[in-house]
Amino acid sequence: MSNKTWSGRFNEPVSELVKQYTGSIDFDKRLAKWDIQGSLAHAQMLHEAGVLSAQDLADIQRGMAEIQAEVDSGSLKWSLDLEDVHMNIERRLTDKIGDAGKRLHTGRSRNDQVATDIRLWLRDEISTIRFLIKDLQSALLELASNNVHTVMPGFTHLQVAQPVSFAHHLLAYVEMLGRDDERMADCRKRVNRMPLGAAALAGTTFPIQRETTAKLLDFEQICQNSLDAVSDRDFAIEFTAAASLLMVHLSRLSEELIIWMSPRFAFIDIADRFCTGSSIMPQKKNPDVPELVRGKSGRVVGHLTGLILLMKSQPLAYNKDNQEDKEPLFDTVDTVIDTLRIYADMMRGITVKPENMRAAVLQGFATATDLADYLVKKGVPFRDSHEVVAQAVRHAETQQCDLADLPLSVLQGFSALIENDVYDILTPEGSLNARNHVGGTAPEQVKLQIARWQKLLAE
Amino acid sequence: MSNKTWSGRFNEPVSELVKQYTGSIDFDKRLAKWDIQGSLAHAQMLHEAGVLSAQDLADIQRGMAEIQAEVDSGSLKWSLDLEDVHMNIERRLTDKIGDAGKRLHTGRSRNDQVATDIRLWLRDEISTIRFLIKDLQSALLELASNNVHTVMPGFTHLQVAQPVSFAHHLLAYVEMLGRDDERMADCRKRVNRMPLGAAALAGTTFPIQRETTAKLLDFEQICQNSLDAVSDRDFAIEFTAAASLLMVHLSRLSEELIIWMSPRFAFIDIADRFCTGSSIMPQKKNPDVPELVRGKSGRVVGHLTGLILLMKSQPLAYNKDNQEDKEPLFDTVDTVIDTLRIYADMMRGITVKPENMRAAVLQGFATATDLADYLVKKGVPFRDSHEVVAQAVRHAETQQCDLADLPLSVLQGFSALIENDVYDILTPEGSLNARNHVGGTAPEQVKLQIARWQKLLAE
Amino acid sequence: MSNKTWSGRFNEPVSELVKQYTGSIDFDKRLAKWDIQGSLAHAQMLHEAGVLSAQDLADIQRGMAEIQAEVDSGSLKWSLDLEDVHMNIERRLTDKIGDAGKRLHTGRSRNDQVATDIRLWLRDEISTIRFLIKDLQSALLELASNNVHTVMPGFTHLQVAQPVSFAHHLLAYVEMLGRDDERMADCRKRVNRMPLGAAALAGTTFPIQRETTAKLLDFEQICQNSLDAVSDRDFAIEFTAAASLLMVHLSRLSEELIIWMSPRFAFIDIADRFCTGSSIMPQKKNPDVPELVRGKSGRVVGHLTGLILLMKSQPLAYNKDNQEDKEPLFDTVDTVIDTLRIYADMMRGITVKPENMRAAVLQGFATATDLADYLVKKGVPFRDSHEVVAQAVRHAETQQCDLADLPLSVLQGFSALIENDVYDILTPEGSLNARNHVGGTAPEQVKLQIARWQKLLAE
Amino acid sequence: MSNKTWSGRFNEPVSELVKQYTGSIDFDKRLAKWDIQGSLAHAQMLHEAGVLSAQDLADIQRGMAEIQAEVDSGSLKWSLDLEDVHMNIERRLTDKIGDAGKRLHTGRSRNDQVATDIRLWLRDEISTIRFLIKDLQSALLELASNNVHTVMPGFTHLQVAQPVSFAHHLLAYVEMLGRDDERMADCRKRVNRMPLGAAALAGTTFPIQRETTAKLLDFEQICQNSLDAVSDRDFAIEFTAAASLLMVHLSRLSEELIIWMSPRFAFIDIADRFCTGSSIMPQKKNPDVPELVRGKSGRVVGHLTGLILLMKSQPLAYNKDNQEDKEPLFDTVDTVIDTLRIYADMMRGITVKPENMRAAVLQGFATATDLADYLVKKGVPFRDSHEVVAQAVRHAETQQCDLADLPLSVLQGFSALIENDVYDILTPEGSLNARNHVGGTAPEQVKLQIARWQKLLAE
Repeated sequence: MSNKTWSGRFNEPVSELVKQYTGSIDFDKRLAKWDIQGSLAHAQMLHEAGVLSAQDLADIQRGMAEIQAEVDSGSLKWSLDLEDVHMNIERRLTDKIGDAGKRLHTGRSRNDQVATDIRLWLRDEISTIRFLIKDLQSALLELASNNVHTVMPGFTHLQVAQPVSFAHHLLAYVEMLGRDDERMADCRKRVNRMPLGAAALAGTTFPIQRETTAKLLDFEQICQNSLDAVSDRDFAIEFTAAASLLMVHLSRLSEELIIWMSPRFAFIDIADRFCTGSSIMPQKKNPDVPELVRGKSGRVVGHLTGLILLMKSQPLAYNKDNQEDKEPLFDTVDTVIDTLRIYADMMRGITVKPENMRAAVLQGFATATDLADYLVKKGVPFRDSHEVVAQAVRHAETQQCDLADLPLSVLQGFSALIENDVYDILTPEGSLNARNHVGGTAPEQVKLQIARWQKLLAE
Repeated sequence: MSNKTWSGRFNEPVSELVKQYTGSIDFDKRLAKWDIQGSLAHAQMLHEAGVLSAQDLADIQRGMAEIQAEVDSGSLKWSLDLEDVHMNIERRLTDKIGDAGKRLHTGRSRNDQVATDIRLWLRDEISTIRFLIKDLQSALLELASNNVHTVMPGFTHLQVAQPVSFAHHLLAYVEMLGRDDERMADCRKRVNRMPLGAAALAGTTFPIQRETTAKLLDFEQICQNSLDAVSDRDFAIEFTAAASLLMVHLSRLSEELIIWMSPRFAFIDIADRFCTGSSIMPQKKNPDVPELVRGKSGRVVGHLTGLILLMKSQPLAYNKDNQEDKEPLFDTVDTVIDTLRIYADMMRGITVKPENMRAAVLQGFATATDLADYLVKKGVPFRDSHEVVAQAVRHAETQQCDLADLPLSVLQGFSALIENDVYDILTPEGSLNARNHVGGTAPEQVKLQIARWQKLLAE
Repeated sequence: MSNKTWSGRFNEPVSELVKQYTGSIDFDKRLAKWDIQGSLAHAQMLHEAGVLSAQDLADIQRGMAEIQAEVDSGSLKWSLDLEDVHMNIERRLTDKIGDAGKRLHTGRSRNDQVATDIRLWLRDEISTIRFLIKDLQSALLELASNNVHTVMPGFTHLQVAQPVSFAHHLLAYVEMLGRDDERMADCRKRVNRMPLGAAALAGTTFPIQRETTAKLLDFEQICQNSLDAVSDRDFAIEFTAAASLLMVHLSRLSEELIIWMSPRFAFIDIADRFCTGSSIMPQKKNPDVPELVRGKSGRVVGHLTGLILLMKSQPLAYNKDNQEDKEPLFDTVDTVIDTLRIYADMMRGITVKPENMRAAVLQGFATATDLADYLVKKGVPFRDSHEVVAQAVRHAETQQCDLADLPLSVLQGFSALIENDVYDILTPEGSLNARNHVGGTAPEQVKLQIARWQKLLAE
Repeated sequence: MSNKTWSGRFNEPVSELVKQYTGSIDFDKRLAKWDIQGSLAHAQMLHEAGVLSAQDLADIQRGMAEIQAEVDSGSLKWSLDLEDVHMNIERRLTDKIGDAGKRLHTGRSRNDQVATDIRLWLRDEISTIRFLIKDLQSALLELASNNVHTVMPGFTHLQVAQPVSFAHHLLAYVEMLGRDDERMADCRKRVNRMPLGAAALAGTTFPIQRETTAKLLDFEQICQNSLDAVSDRDFAIEFTAAASLLMVHLSRLSEELIIWMSPRFAFIDIADRFCTGSSIMPQKKNPDVPELVRGKSGRVVGHLTGLILLMKSQPLAYNKDNQEDKEPLFDTVDTVIDTLRIYADMMRGITVKPENMRAAVLQGFATATDLADYLVKKGVPFRDSHEVVAQAVRHAETQQCDLADLPLSVLQGFSALIENDVYDILTPEGSLNARNHVGGTAPEQVKLQIARWQKLLAE
């Protein structure tokens, strides 16, 4: 095989490629703001510890303020030759303020510096995500509030099982999101610990005061072991696992929205701006956003797998492998934030078609359990009652009608205990109202749950 | 292709295979104890709610006690025809006590029953795992206590970086395990919520009192939405994610044990009973247990991926897919428990070879950073000092000696600021002692950390 | 924390646990038949190479025949003390025939022995899987043959797109399975290579003739590098990846079966024996088998992830980690084989409801593209035609009727080029017939595809 | 909670975000070249089929040539409002040539268009990857050629097992890469099939000639089912699985390079340009490239998991989820190509330290198996011989010497069959030479393997 065919393809010399392969500035420049924050706190602490003069500190503060402004305006030129965000900023600082810039790295290493940056950044992003989770919960609650009495078929195995309130169905997702929020909060505790001071891996010979730096940076704890501090990426994996669960929840809701929008169901409509048409079929209105969300769950879970693989079997302490933690983390955060924002807006644009939902309830003997319970209350053991109703359903099926459409005499043929009051419990509304306990679908309970969540979200 | 070649292979009729494919009794019989617990509490509550008579309750209690005894003795015959552990136990109960057995299922469904069983079971297993994590931490602390002053090379990139205390290195794993324990505790909170009362998916028409049942079963909370209650498998995924991180940690320690036991390192020896020989090479002593642990991390992470895939895009509420949650959960729990037990015992059987560790420290210019820090303290900016030392290292390399072996005059050739006191900081011990701040490797700090953990574990 | 609470739990001494943790006999005894095959070929070769006497060979053959019979009858007692299937069989052989048994292991190691066993076994299982794939394809073809003219809505985004033949839809899965079969065949080539002769890792000092052994065992090639031979588990990963794709395909078909069986769709019915009822809802008939298949796809993909993690970063040559390859492989094979068997039988028990499918076609403007194409053929550029039809669809939507229900005059209001022949192409059947090219849904094409596949499967 | 805190963060209105969330132009513009290729072939076919006039075809060809030039020069402005690469190019074409541009989309849909583009692109990338695999194999062979007689310890369990030729060790990776190449070739067959003509999902009413288009685009086959054609992403998963295995192989070699470069091993040195220093430790030279490769294996495997999740349970035919196939595919291709290029160059820059390898051989009783084989050849059954040598090793261990250092009289104390010729086989070189069969480590065999591969690669 000749090299010639391929040489055109690879006009970049390998040495340049190595620089790019090992450099991280293309993606870690995103951490600039947090890198500067961390450096300022480090410098302040070094000064308080007597390692850095007041003049040096002042120079560093002035220089960093200028650099932050350059970052904000986009005027800072990032150089691949300087590998990463840390060296780029330090070099820029030294260009501006001279020796004081060279003294900034005293008592730290890039190993603890990058670990600090990423935690500062992720801590903020988790706060954003928690806010957006709550906003999506609010959107679901708004829709629920308007649909407490909207009856839809509750499905198990995608078969009609029992009537439920549409609001009750939506509240299931409010619960899931509530757990996502809990997990994010739990994860944030472990993110919010300071590795700075671990230096390369063993700590430093300078008289650093880690508590001071931690306080300046608002860290809850400091990492208690320097080797662990520079090599720990648990928080990245734990966060991505929590994000994966969140995306799994949204993939489930998306699956339902897609099914509900399919013309045979036609339970809901999604506002046009979340849908697109077809390049060939003029009649199409496709639920693109829920489909993409469903698809993007794969992306986030892929990052989780990748991060676990990254850490598996890594000996202590820092290894270059760890540089690979950033892109999946960044993409996970971006995906989750964009998805939550769009989702909340989309839920606020849902149109409900209650008549189609109700029609679907009547198609699947959804109140059969109610009849069974009715008989149990008249003294029939549950297992026997279950059997009686199964026979009534089989009969109604042959008649192509609902249980409520069978005349009393026919029903009594299955059990003499059945009386005229049976028809009250065979309606969807009767069925709903009867499930009146904590967690049940009775409108009374659903209203209590909505109120409970509204209160929680207002806190 | 002829069917005949294959027919011998498949002598089982498909209908029998369907039974086996859809049945779960082969693995879920493991839940019998918790299924009985749950049923007893449910029956008690039904009685208090006036749904079940005192006689029925007494019969159920007596019957269940007999069944538990049969389970314990292994005399209960499980039937695949009865599909799962729930139907097997209910049938056995009905055989024993008649109609009262048929009344037990009043106000519940297998959907909420199985969700309750698995949470009761997992709650107990997490407690066990937490205990075993602490026991492994204790084993590491014991080894650390004996090695506070054992100097080993701290590695980054598997290159010698700086000297560290072997105890300090071990404490990094104590920290990791500490986070594993935190995650298990956080996860347990979410496991310890009661789905019972959700019935099939919508709640029940019977006047159940879920708080009563929850109290009897020692649940912290009750699930607030019936649809969510029967379809939620978050807890299984969260637990498996936490278990994956735990296994990743042990895969890292295993990697190190394997490297340390390799003859070129020879830092440690593992007790014979954790190793095996070779069927062909008479001289071999292989670190089988750490290798298997490293391998088994794959297994647990595989279960995590599998469980996420299981839940992705599932519409509400219960679907049969969920039956697939059990085997990966069971295997994850078994793997983690066995691994933790063996690991603690193995760590207690580690023999340390301090002389080899120290020899390795002297092989890699491990105190170069100390020299750089020395110069900084004399006023050289860190970046310049770093450059000076790099030159000194290059010189020592050509001389094939350590920095500490260079005469003062030679060292002074690199910087006139170097004085005779430099040799104090160029020893491994000097380097160690100098990193004397929270999280640093100085023996004084290491002792404080050991004491801190001993206190935490004693709580 | 007190040990006492927990001691009851762990009554097994750790040393026993180590034996169990490191032993593999519990699962690798499944390889007995192939281990014996491999040993017989090895012995035969050793004899031909002059290493083993005729008497020794005869003894080994006699002994192995007896052991195989004991395995078949289940009378062989497996001992955990002998670790694995290889040592169990060798010990049993030596018990039976003395020194000749001890000579069998000449020129090999367990490392190449187990690699050979697992390849022999997997090779056979892949053949079985390929047969079962073809059987499922046949079942799909049978159903397709009866439904060439059954019109159903073709969906994109679960929205009605264009009418398709139900047979055409089924043939999509025949294609997928065809690729699965190709991949299994490609994978089998790489499974069917002989590691035997690699010994522990470097080859052996005995004058072995690997070509002879390979021929006796019907291997296509021999592994050309001993280090690679004992450490290669590519074939396990490649197989599990191919199996994952197969399961993904079946998860997709399962998803469709579940949707089609939902009462709002009611496109098909699945035979009762693949469904179960509910413990609480007497009317339910749940599509358990497709749901379980969908769920079990997670299991197989989990094994894939686990196996990749297992091999990641493993140094050469054999490491004990590799013992962990077996359980995921065994479970993958079992899952795939059971699933394929049940699926073929299930597809043969599908009842189609053509009237519901046709009704669904008429609900979504499925022939809008046909109208656009009609205009293009009259000279309108496609993009303009697409716009015209979109307007017609919007009008029909307001009238709550299909395009075919609009009078000619109304249609002509959108384009003067529309004439009376438009109604021919606005019917589902007209739409179908018009897509008459290779791969299109026209019944004529569908019949050709069925015939093509029938011929391929008959080969 | 107040919105105000967060509003600054989200200054982009959601509608803009939706556009970005659903648009793909940011990443799929990379497909422009192949999109144009596909369109040109489609237009040519439409012309031959009488659907497009000669003038239209000429206009399209002219317009597309201009657009390709704009793409090459970077002057084409991509618009997010036009969603994707297809609409951007079509719009640009229509701007240039008017109605003929609007006619181009006749008889196709974006669904089959994008599937065609991605296959055309991936087909080319696989060819590149195959070329680069072979180049890396060549680099390994070059290094092997110079190290046929370099003796290193062959490891199992990272314990010294038997001496092997360093060339033999390298050849193990040549074998692995050979299988990677095979898998890429097998995968390419399935990539190289044409979906074009499937249109949206059901085919088209225009008289297209798919064989013509396929021939123009050099496709080996055409997809035989339109529904499958637009929804099939098997090829993406299969490719990513093959790429994952490739990366796993390189992660294994990287692990070894890292260990070999660790000072305790010091078997090799990696050229400086593949290493970096430390920001704090002046003496460090870190093997960054192998570490990053090891880390990047996680990334590729993550994409595999993500893609499988993407497809799991998707109903037919096209769903928007599928748009998520591109980014992981693009990143996988880029990662694999960059990694292979750098790796080949890095292997060409490896410095071998044979004296350290040889010293390591002598540290682990590497020739114990040779002694066992020696005794077997004198008539001792293998199992007994194995036991004798184990005793000799234990004795040598107490003497802290190698087996070859024991006097004959001492050796004879373990077996009277040992004679003076034993010392020939106890040297590393004797051990190597003795494993002289296909796949064995004897230099004679190693040379044959090198020659075999050189011939294969020259083809």
